Amino acid sequence: MSPDFQLTPDGRLRHLLTLDGLPAALIRELLDRAEALLPHAHAGTGLRDRHAGRTACTLFFETSTRTRSSFQLAATRLGMDVLNFDVGTSSTKKGESALDTLKTLEAMGVDLFVIRHADNGAVAELAAGAAPGTRVINAGDGRAAHPTQGLLDMLTLRQRKGADFSRLTVLIAGDLLHSRVARSDLHALRALGCGEIRVCGPANLLPGDEVLHGCRVFRDFDQAIAGVDAAIMLRLQRERMEQGLVPSLEGYYRDFGLSPERLARAAPGALVMHPGPMNRGIEIDGGVADGPQSVILAQVANGLPVRMAVIDALMG
Amino acid sequence: MSPDFQLTPDGRLRHLLTLDGLPAALIRELLDRAEALLPHAHAGTGLRDRHAGRTACTLFFETSTRTRSSFQLAATRLGMDVLNFDVGTSSTKKGESALDTLKTLEAMGVDLFVIRHADNGAVAELAAGAAPGTRVINAGDGRAAHPTQGLLDMLTLRQRKGADFSRLTVLIAGDLLHSRVARSDLHALRALGCGEIRVCGPANLLPGDEVLHGCRVFRDFDQAIAGVDAAIMLRLQRERMEQGLVPSLEGYYRDFGLSPERLARAAPGALVMHPGPMNRGIEIDGGVADGPQSVILAQVANGLPVRMAVIDALMG
Amino acid sequence: MSPDFQLTPDGRLRHLLTLDGLPAALIRELLDRAEALLPHAHAGTGLRDRHAGRTACTLFFETSTRTRSSFQLAATRLGMDVLNFDVGTSSTKKGESALDTLKTLEAMGVDLFVIRHADNGAVAELAAGAAPGTRVINAGDGRAAHPTQGLLDMLTLRQRKGADFSRLTVLIAGDLLHSRVARSDLHALRALGCGEIRVCGPANLLPGDEVLHGCRVFRDFDQAIAGVDAAIMLRLQRERMEQGLVPSLEGYYRDFGLSPERLARAAPGALVMHPGPMNRGIEIDGGVADGPQSVILAQVANGLPVRMAVIDALMG
Repeated sequence: MSPDFQLTPDGRLRHLLTLDGLPAALIRELLDRAEALLPHAHAGTGLRDRHAGRTACTLFFETSTRTRSSFQLAATRLGMDVLNFDVGTSSTKKGESALDTLKTLEAMGVDLFVIRHADNGAVAELAAGAAPGTRVINAGDGRAAHPTQGLLDMLTLRQRKGADFSRLTVLIAGDLLHSRVARSDLHALRALGCGEIRVCGPANLLPGDEVLHGCRVFRDFDQAIAGVDAAIMLRLQRERMEQGLVPSLEGYYRDFGLSPERLARAAPGALVMHPGPMNRGIEIDGGVADGPQSVILAQVANGLPVRMAVIDALMG
Repeated sequence: MSPDFQLTPDGRLRHLLTLDGLPAALIRELLDRAEALLPHAHAGTGLRDRHAGRTACTLFFETSTRTRSSFQLAATRLGMDVLNFDVGTSSTKKGESALDTLKTLEAMGVDLFVIRHADNGAVAELAAGAAPGTRVINAGDGRAAHPTQGLLDMLTLRQRKGADFSRLTVLIAGDLLHSRVARSDLHALRALGCGEIRVCGPANLLPGDEVLHGCRVFRDFDQAIAGVDAAIMLRLQRERMEQGLVPSLEGYYRDFGLSPERLARAAPGALVMHPGPMNRGIEIDGGVADGPQSVILAQVANGLPVRMAVIDALMG
Repeated sequence: MSPDFQLTPDGRLRHLLTLDGLPAALIRELLDRAEALLPHAHAGTGLRDRHAGRTACTLFFETSTRTRSSFQLAATRLGMDVLNFDVGTSSTKKGESALDTLKTLEAMGVDLFVIRHADNGAVAELAAGAAPGTRVINAGDGRAAHPTQGLLDMLTLRQRKGADFSRLTVLIAGDLLHSRVARSDLHALRALGCGEIRVCGPANLLPGDEVLHGCRVFRDFDQAIAGVDAAIMLRLQRERMEQGLVPSLEGYYRDFGLSPERLARAAPGALVMHPGPMNRGIEIDGGVADGPQSVILAQVANGLPVRMAVIDALMG
């Protein structure tokens, strides 16, 4: 997926498919826009005229009620009509191609698609087949990218730790191999010039250097977390145990779970982050998740203005 | 579930979790409010500004399209944005706790939750974990309560039989053991001072005295219905036969079904009520359900103003 | 289903159940109305006051996300509130009759039902049981009718080939036996006085003369398509092979698929039509589906103004 593909010739966002290769100025512009939208994000009707009469469609080839709901509310706050298109119950089951489904919805008048798909690159492929006036947001494709999650994580970091990322040490821990969130966070942290990026996880759940270049890789969680300003904990899918990638959930928590003791090794006031849904007692202790350093619900809350900002930027 | 928990310190409704222990004055106030909302319930846009920009979420851990639709329309009529969150397709399947799901949606800006859950007390537990500003309506939890159904049944009775419940004899018949509707009706009838409450059903489908206190219990339906002003017939779930609780559906109808002959034993003009969905020919004869004494569709129609009234009372 | 049943005594549309027997003047009026609504169909909020405060319900006893979405957008554009009622997750599963489901939703304030059902005539039966003020649109019943698809096909033909249908030769090809689209197209083409109607398909997938009366029946596709002004290709459901009705998908394409070579035998500028979802490489070549003569996406786009027109006509 070429990073240029998602830009117009004059350098503005046409689609949001990945943060990989996106200019830092554009990322900062989206974060600024999100901050300006904050007062309108969680209530109020002040922006209902903004894109009234335009139509957004959440087109999910993989189920995610949380992300879909967040996009649905964001588009609604901006006055758009929203179609929720759950592919599990649609014609795609009858053998129609994903692109035919998109083209059909486009013909019905959908202006903006929010797409999730299980395959890497599938959303970009759909965007490439869309009409020139159609806008596409990647709501997660395979392991490749989840750019709005990356943006909301950056917004959360910036709100709490300031705009100068060069002063920050950020740890991403857990199953990075299968995580699109980790990849989008890495893209964004690099673009914003994060001082030090650390990663830590079981050796068989870490991707190769094409993903981790520039990161400090740790095998030992106690060393990894020492002095960090933020720890982004990743969800461990329970299937990983059945697949033999993780010997036991107890062992995983012992080696890679964020316990209160481990958090104490981080810098004072370090942020605890998690994209959700959490497995309490597996990758994170329940008390830590609910504790004073946790910004997990603030991340969720930031999802709304960030998604409003991206929609607003694309809809022009 | 303490009845006080759902009230603010100054005695107003914060959540609606149960009618059990709710002061009669509060119940009457909700019924009055529902009646005032009647002209706006089934059409019209007169109240769209009332709670515009606020967000309601139907969070159903147990499927019920009817009840969900009724709440969705009620919130829409009051100008709210509505998220339908079907847990069957959500992260809860991935192991997230129900409370984490609620907290996540709350962080997205949901102001009011309408929750259904298969377990007794589960909705109150979720309400206890919600933020101070969040409002919760119980749309049915286990066998415990279905308070808006209780309220709409009272509104229907009051519209047809007058506000003085002390003059009324009301029968609740069928599977009271498993019925949250029966419990909420009993709570409301007691609070409003119903003259005589009768119950009738198979011995093994009647709950104990902690539920039936103050009721006249009948084993014989012909005696139970004699002279009543209203008969509330309960749905018999077909599973009861497989569970061996009911020998046969034919036998059930013969002993406990509301036939035209039985209805003739009630007081002249007695009301036939049923919370739906009905099993015609099992707990109720189809002709009786559609006959002139049936107010079953009026109950459904009253669901809308009653739910609007509850939402309006909670949203302040 | 009597064609008169769907008309008011003074000859206006009360329900839209079938195009069979509908006066040509009424069909033309709906097409004119759709054309007038075109500017409002795909964006804009100009008509949001038109039926504001009225409620539409898509009541689908058979899943179809495409058709449901199209109706949902059409009703939304006209300002209506829309309930999506998926029967797969509803009380009907619990044994409630379809009519009780409709009457319940009607009691909640639904003004207009858009119904799909697997059984021939089921939608008309539900319309017969509805209250006098309730309106019903058939969104497809069994093999019997899909009238809005018929109308949007006629609108597409008229836009491209002019209003004088007597000059046109139109081919409907494929599995006509199981197709409600074919039946509604036939009803409409006859009513509008189409010059020549041709049909072509495997002998065991063609219905009898009660459906095909007045059509020229072809066994050979090359002969059937020669000189036609439009070819309406029907979806071949893959189940037909398992049922032994079609020997192989390859053979089907060879004998009855619309290849570029076959299309070249049609009149210059002949239209390629398909109701979707398509099976590329089975009933239609992918390049033909995407080619310059294809109006398949224009059909989809016309679905919106046509459905708005029907809703608008029924809601008065």
